[in-house]
Amino acid sequence: MIPSTPTAFADRHIGARRGEHVKHMLNAIDLDSVEALAAIAVPDTIKQDRPLELGPALSESDALAALRALAAKNTPRVQMIGQGYYDTVTPPVIRRNVVENPAWYTAYTPYQPEISQGRLEALLNFQTAVADLTGLPIANASLLDEATAVAEAVLLMRRANRDKAAKDGVTVLDADLFPQTIAVVTGRAKALGFETVVADLSAGLPEGPINGIVLQQPGASGRVEVAAELIAAAKARGAMVTVATDLLALTLITSPGEQGADIAVGSAQRFGVPLFYGGPHAAFIAVHRGLERQLPGRLVGVSKDDAGAPAYRLALQTREQHIRREKATSNICTAQALLAIVAGMYAVHHGPEGLRAIADRVHGHARELATALDAAGVPVAHRSFFDTVTASVPGRADDVVAAAERDGVNLRRIDADTVGISCDELTIAHHVVVVARAFGVELDAAPEPAASFALTPETRRSSDYLTHPVFHSYRSETQLMRYLRRLADRDLALDRTMIPLGSCTMKLNATVEMEAITWPEFAGIHPFAPDSQTTGWRELIADLESDLATITGYDRVSIQPNAGSQGELAGLLAIRGYHASRGDDQRTVCLIPASAHGTNAASAVLAGMRVVVVATAGNGEIEHDDLAAKIEANRDTLAAIMITYPSTHGVYDADVREVCEAVHAAGGQVYIDGANMNALVGLAQPGAFGGDVSHLNLHKTFCIPHGGGGPGVGPVAVREHLAPFLPGDAATWTADTERSDIPVSASRYGSAGVLPISWAYVKLMGGEGLTQATTSALLAANYVARRLDPHFPVLYTGEAGLVAHECILDLRELTARTGVTAEDVAKRLIDFGFHAPTLSFPVAGTLMVEPTESEDLGEIDRFIDAMIAIRAEIENVADGTLTVDDSPLRRAPHTAAAVISSDWDRPYSREEAAFPGATHTQDKYFAPVGRIDGAGGDRNLICECPPLSAFEN
Amino acid sequence: MIPSTPTAFADRHIGARRGEHVKHMLNAIDLDSVEALAAIAVPDTIKQDRPLELGPALSESDALAALRALAAKNTPRVQMIGQGYYDTVTPPVIRRNVVENPAWYTAYTPYQPEISQGRLEALLNFQTAVADLTGLPIANASLLDEATAVAEAVLLMRRANRDKAAKDGVTVLDADLFPQTIAVVTGRAKALGFETVVADLSAGLPEGPINGIVLQQPGASGRVEVAAELIAAAKARGAMVTVATDLLALTLITSPGEQGADIAVGSAQRFGVPLFYGGPHAAFIAVHRGLERQLPGRLVGVSKDDAGAPAYRLALQTREQHIRREKATSNICTAQALLAIVAGMYAVHHGPEGLRAIADRVHGHARELATALDAAGVPVAHRSFFDTVTASVPGRADDVVAAAERDGVNLRRIDADTVGISCDELTIAHHVVVVARAFGVELDAAPEPAASFALTPETRRSSDYLTHPVFHSYRSETQLMRYLRRLADRDLALDRTMIPLGSCTMKLNATVEMEAITWPEFAGIHPFAPDSQTTGWRELIADLESDLATITGYDRVSIQPNAGSQGELAGLLAIRGYHASRGDDQRTVCLIPASAHGTNAASAVLAGMRVVVVATAGNGEIEHDDLAAKIEANRDTLAAIMITYPSTHGVYDADVREVCEAVHAAGGQVYIDGANMNALVGLAQPGAFGGDVSHLNLHKTFCIPHGGGGPGVGPVAVREHLAPFLPGDAATWTADTERSDIPVSASRYGSAGVLPISWAYVKLMGGEGLTQATTSALLAANYVARRLDPHFPVLYTGEAGLVAHECILDLRELTARTGVTAEDVAKRLIDFGFHAPTLSFPVAGTLMVEPTESEDLGEIDRFIDAMIAIRAEIENVADGTLTVDDSPLRRAPHTAAAVISSDWDRPYSREEAAFPGATHTQDKYFAPVGRIDGAGGDRNLICECPPLSAFEN
Repeated sequence: MIPSTPTAFADRHIGARRGEHVKHMLNAIDLDSVEALAAIAVPDTIKQDRPLELGPALSESDALAALRALAAKNTPRVQMIGQGYYDTVTPPVIRRNVVENPAWYTAYTPYQPEISQGRLEALLNFQTAVADLTGLPIANASLLDEATAVAEAVLLMRRANRDKAAKDGVTVLDADLFPQTIAVVTGRAKALGFETVVADLSAGLPEGPINGIVLQQPGASGRVEVAAELIAAAKARGAMVTVATDLLALTLITSPGEQGADIAVGSAQRFGVPLFYGGPHAAFIAVHRGLERQLPGRLVGVSKDDAGAPAYRLALQTREQHIRREKATSNICTAQALLAIVAGMYAVHHGPEGLRAIADRVHGHARELATALDAAGVPVAHRSFFDTVTASVPGRADDVVAAAERDGVNLRRIDADTVGISCDELTIAHHVVVVARAFGVELDAAPEPAASFALTPETRRSSDYLTHPVFHSYRSETQLMRYLRRLADRDLALDRTMIPLGSCTMKLNATVEMEAITWPEFAGIHPFAPDSQTTGWRELIADLESDLATITGYDRVSIQPNAGSQGELAGLLAIRGYHASRGDDQRTVCLIPASAHGTNAASAVLAGMRVVVVATAGNGEIEHDDLAAKIEANRDTLAAIMITYPSTHGVYDADVREVCEAVHAAGGQVYIDGANMNALVGLAQPGAFGGDVSHLNLHKTFCIPHGGGGPGVGPVAVREHLAPFLPGDAATWTADTERSDIPVSASRYGSAGVLPISWAYVKLMGGEGLTQATTSALLAANYVARRLDPHFPVLYTGEAGLVAHECILDLRELTARTGVTAEDVAKRLIDFGFHAPTLSFPVAGTLMVEPTESEDLGEIDRFIDAMIAIRAEIENVADGTLTVDDSPLRRAPHTAAAVISSDWDRPYSREEAAFPGATHTQDKYFAPVGRIDGAGGDRNLICECPPLSAFEN
Repeated sequence: MIPSTPTAFADRHIGARRGEHVKHMLNAIDLDSVEALAAIAVPDTIKQDRPLELGPALSESDALAALRALAAKNTPRVQMIGQGYYDTVTPPVIRRNVVENPAWYTAYTPYQPEISQGRLEALLNFQTAVADLTGLPIANASLLDEATAVAEAVLLMRRANRDKAAKDGVTVLDADLFPQTIAVVTGRAKALGFETVVADLSAGLPEGPINGIVLQQPGASGRVEVAAELIAAAKARGAMVTVATDLLALTLITSPGEQGADIAVGSAQRFGVPLFYGGPHAAFIAVHRGLERQLPGRLVGVSKDDAGAPAYRLALQTREQHIRREKATSNICTAQALLAIVAGMYAVHHGPEGLRAIADRVHGHARELATALDAAGVPVAHRSFFDTVTASVPGRADDVVAAAERDGVNLRRIDADTVGISCDELTIAHHVVVVARAFGVELDAAPEPAASFALTPETRRSSDYLTHPVFHSYRSETQLMRYLRRLADRDLALDRTMIPLGSCTMKLNATVEMEAITWPEFAGIHPFAPDSQTTGWRELIADLESDLATITGYDRVSIQPNAGSQGELAGLLAIRGYHASRGDDQRTVCLIPASAHGTNAASAVLAGMRVVVVATAGNGEIEHDDLAAKIEANRDTLAAIMITYPSTHGVYDADVREVCEAVHAAGGQVYIDGANMNALVGLAQPGAFGGDVSHLNLHKTFCIPHGGGGPGVGPVAVREHLAPFLPGDAATWTADTERSDIPVSASRYGSAGVLPISWAYVKLMGGEGLTQATTSALLAANYVARRLDPHFPVLYTGEAGLVAHECILDLRELTARTGVTAEDVAKRLIDFGFHAPTLSFPVAGTLMVEPTESEDLGEIDRFIDAMIAIRAEIENVADGTLTVDDSPLRRAPHTAAAVISSDWDRPYSREEAAFPGATHTQDKYFAPVGRIDGAGGDRNLICECPPLSAFEN
């Protein structure tokens, strides 16, 4: 039998070469085999008793062929359904140089701003575009989708509204919001126990106290009306105002800010981001000044570096969930950075005049269509609209939609009597003729748009937008290509260095996994397209859900949550739903260990739970006495425990089964955070050793690239009894009391667009390969721990002195002795060409290192050598050779300008600064800015592109 | 009427923004409009009288849709035809990071080695792999295709063989060569007038003097036999020996070098390069030591930089055609650099053990097939083969091939009685079953291969290969991704800087033009697939040929020539064929102006012509008196004149019509080299103003990317009377005296694989856009000329002081006065982040600048400012402030290591060295090596990867 492929994909994915390299690493930890390592590291109590059964591993060619076969079962049509999703042209230069370029898609969240200036600038472009178009000056760097963005806005209003009479009032949702928006917001409100009312606000405000109102412009029905009076009336009553809106429409219509809104939200999808069968897309939120500290999600701001040069960074991070924990007001963690970058670059590429021209065209075709229908006696709902025409066809909606479908066009069936048609960037006059025909209106050509369908003068925008030079400087493809390259070159991503981030690590995002996502048969599908057109997508999704269930040992999986945080929320909502279904509404206490991710607590709060913290012992494990006490104290109200396994301390607690059993015995459910599932795959299954529910992070364990901070996918996996409470479809969900399947994302399959990546990874690896990846990750982490322990003590270890997939290096004693901080080490690593490990999480003053299975021995050794060299530099401070302030550690990172300055006056050499350790001078990466002043940037918050004069010396 | 696309693609392709930027540039040259510029610059005598009629310009989306529609008309099948083309897996990591990455595909030929170290290393990997596998130590950096590579080997033997008795003997081609190889070689021999004999060399050598023999291993029939005895016998008779071979087979079988061959050639296609419907693929040639100075094409060698560090460069350039001109022995100019890089990286990715495993698998399946057929009584031709089985099916070949085709497999119909089946990297056991069934042999599964079909011990290779660490260091995808990024970062390509190379310039290679080439429906088609499977390809090709005819004003176009040089050869062969058809065999004199590209003369020599040089006047135009004299002197033997228009001096000669008429009057044909067609498109047509034939460079005028030195496409365009002499299909061509359509490439459509690029460009621009591109190029060149003339005098101008699309900056007076050379300026430009203009062509001591239409005003001004700043530095030498040897000009380029050294002792500052002019410190590009010692590298020629120890300090 001749093997079908000589080199298994697993050997391409896994860095440590079989044979001598693996042996070398095993030698360092005094073990004979990776099997022995897994056998010792993973407690017997939880060990999986048989191999994963996932079918044979596919070769790269076979995986691509299988993806092509699935793609062929999808049918991209002319998509005129609208409802929040509009076809768009991704400029090919952006597709190739961003979406298909590892320098962009493998980048991590810009927590280390000095090596993230490129993507921070790109996100600042996005923020500036959103702020300009919405007319509200503070925009964040993206949210997950429009519906959850509205939910975030509603929560923002609920906490920010200080008006005594209004703050505890209802939240009013205009009836002309998208149905999925109403569903998601209502679901959230239900969990948190505040009241929402859906009302036709064009008929005036409801009686009684109102915390806030949410309008949509243009409305779901397409209607465009200036709401300045309504907004003023709401504010007069103490209510706050959110407007859900559309960036392309805002190039033509008066902005929410100009109408007096407090908050604007929406989706930036139609700025060049493919339909992707519903996601991932970048949502946005913008607020007026004064609300910035209430803003959910990440915010890019401008500060200065140590040489006084402008430098970008994430601003106001103290707001964020990972720092606020149970005081959090949002659980947003992942953003949609890559998609926000695409949308921002779309604005850069087109500029204001280009966007306006696209909008004029979209609007023009919609007017042509309304004119044709109106002239033929088909009533259209509104005279004033942007892109969407709602037509009344009593009893005929199904026929019209079917007729259009036969001609290759998807329309929106609103109800049996009503059809919606949305024009977009791809609409041409021919489509107008085809759609009219579906209504029984025969045209030779699209008619001249009637004046009566023009925007009114008060609706039409008169203010400027996108006035910054960045939106005027890159109009030719050559210019934009070079701009994208220049920005990418300022950053360190996985294509240049390992990113050994404990808890958030980055493994290979293989090209073969990535290639399918931009194929039109996957990327060009509307989330509300008829199922007959999406067979391939749904097969792929069902297959992935099934594989994830097999891997985790659960019974059912939903991939709807479009971030890990949303997976947590979905899982906790399922627990709440389950308790409620048994009459246990009072079970709302969620036990969370002190060492947990901040997001855990934040998600519990958002699921309407009360967080009770359980102490952790010195070894990082849950403290049993405290757990018993907390269970006892909350026996009747215990909803769940949330534990991360292996723990965030990077060890396998030996007694996890006992913990699960104790909670179960008290009537609680066990939530096992799957953040560290990459240490379990093939070795142990949370669904088998005690979990009732888990969520996963597909980016970490299943190869979705980090994208500079999103997209994410956070599938939730449950045992059978929780299956009825998995998230439902927001497009059809209503908040009647019978339904407990609260949707957590606007679209049925969340970030569907990137699922081919994880699907391919599982198929390429097979069960054996996946297990090998896990053991290889364990081997790499233990090799790093063992080799670095003499230089930086490893804080926690489990059985036999082993760690799991990551290790915490404790710098606290060194810091106390020398003043050199973990941050100094992180910044100095940049001079060696490395992205830093995780800084001060879960323990302040430490670095957490997670090398992953994808790093090869050479790269791991390069990192270890760099750390040892840095340790020697610290010794120079310890022995008084250098002061910490004058050390290369504190002055790191070193820019080219700094080391090439004629005025060098530091007590170490330029070579030590620029070429430490074994740095290859010809491949040297120079940080584009020096150490950034974070606090200064927060004091003087600037979240839009700075003027060019800021960059002049 | 709503426009279908708000921003025309032309506005993305063309850099100078309509409106203020164009106006600014026009102001600088004192003109009011680009139309006025074109009207003045282009002589009235040749002006085109009406706009190009090419249909409306397509939007990017529409162009992609049209390409998808064409792709859908091609049918990728299981390709088992073989005959020099074998399916292969392009590792996705290489596809994405090389073939789809502008950092690689927009790079220029590495004539400026300091900014080309990445691609030079990649090409050195290719050379090393070829040298190792062939067992011959000097391999070049690729040739065009296997058939032309054999032709080059034959010519090499004819000039290198000094054996008195043998040197004028015949060239013997073994009958088991591929038919297309025999056709191309025979055609070349016919043109050059030497004799070739096709013989079955397994039956022994023919009588009489033999210059050289060409064998093929494995043979076209699949046969593998060690030919050491035959080779020894040939050498004993004074003959030289070329072996055409297959790199994958050489992992298993004894190499040509070990058998005593002088030369090995072949195609590296199956090392990861897609079938591409026949090309582009990298061919290779390797020779034994002593023949290196005879080697055609480019050769990468190792030398040292000014700090003594190893540095790569093109070696022995004095051999090359562009320097040897009419003494040239090959007209090879373009190589297949990008494809050679892919093939080299394929070897890096797989390493020797991986390649051997692939070869074992291929060989195993071929043995399975032979075993099955043999057992069923179907005679197979040979017991010893690698991948190809030739089966005898008297009278049934058509039926067998048709049966296989019905089952999705393409086989080779050799003749009515014989079928060839070639296995490849994609072959699986199932294919063996399917193919056997086509022969009427029903199998349950592929049989165990019979021992009788194993390679014999003497055939089986025992020597090592790919022992260099580079073939053992990048086995994981992460490693290879980073290696590719690291190499790309060492180079300057179009994604970071303009490449303002006069005569070879680089315009935008738009993503939308590039995307289709890697689609499987284009890339996965075998050149000898049945026409029914290639409708889309042939439509695209016919459409492109038709568009090119429209643009050039000729009647017929053939895109077969796979480089500009081959287009020249094809055009000149057409002229010879035409004269011969009229009984004018004696017309062999080709007039070539002194200023012509060297390739012109080389091609004329290879077409069997005699070159007579015509003098050029001081203004760069042809000297009329000398032309008249040369015509008169050669009236009866005049075959043609070859002129470049606009001339290589960058001006439109006003009297080109007169020149053409004078040559026509003397019975000669006019060959207008289309190298500068980018200055004519839409303004003038060589086919209309006097040309009988032209070739084009699709890379320069029609957006094929340069790829670091190939692929190229050199279509030949002719008036109707020359159409019968356009190149025929080598697969069916035989050298009978009736046929004058000598093929110039192994496959019918040459570099078909990249034609979608030019097709898309023409469709996206339309006639108006193409014309606008031309005038924009004129505007850019004249703007540069006018602004730089006060600093560096512009050597030639035409009417009204205008240049065409490029300008020559004369440094000779400055050099004489200061010692600062044009080369110093070129190297100093690297410190500013620029690729240098063309150096010392066509006039020694000058720089020729061609900015193209794709550069925007900002980038052009950045270049001008850099040149002015350099001029000021020269002034510092002129006034004695600095000596030339101690100036930043002579010491350029400056590496990071040089400027960061503590030992800085130069009389200018580090900042002046590293950040001259307005260089942004944070985006600074550092040359990875300093000035390279070219001559030293030639004296001590090293053309394989150097040992790692060479890089230690």
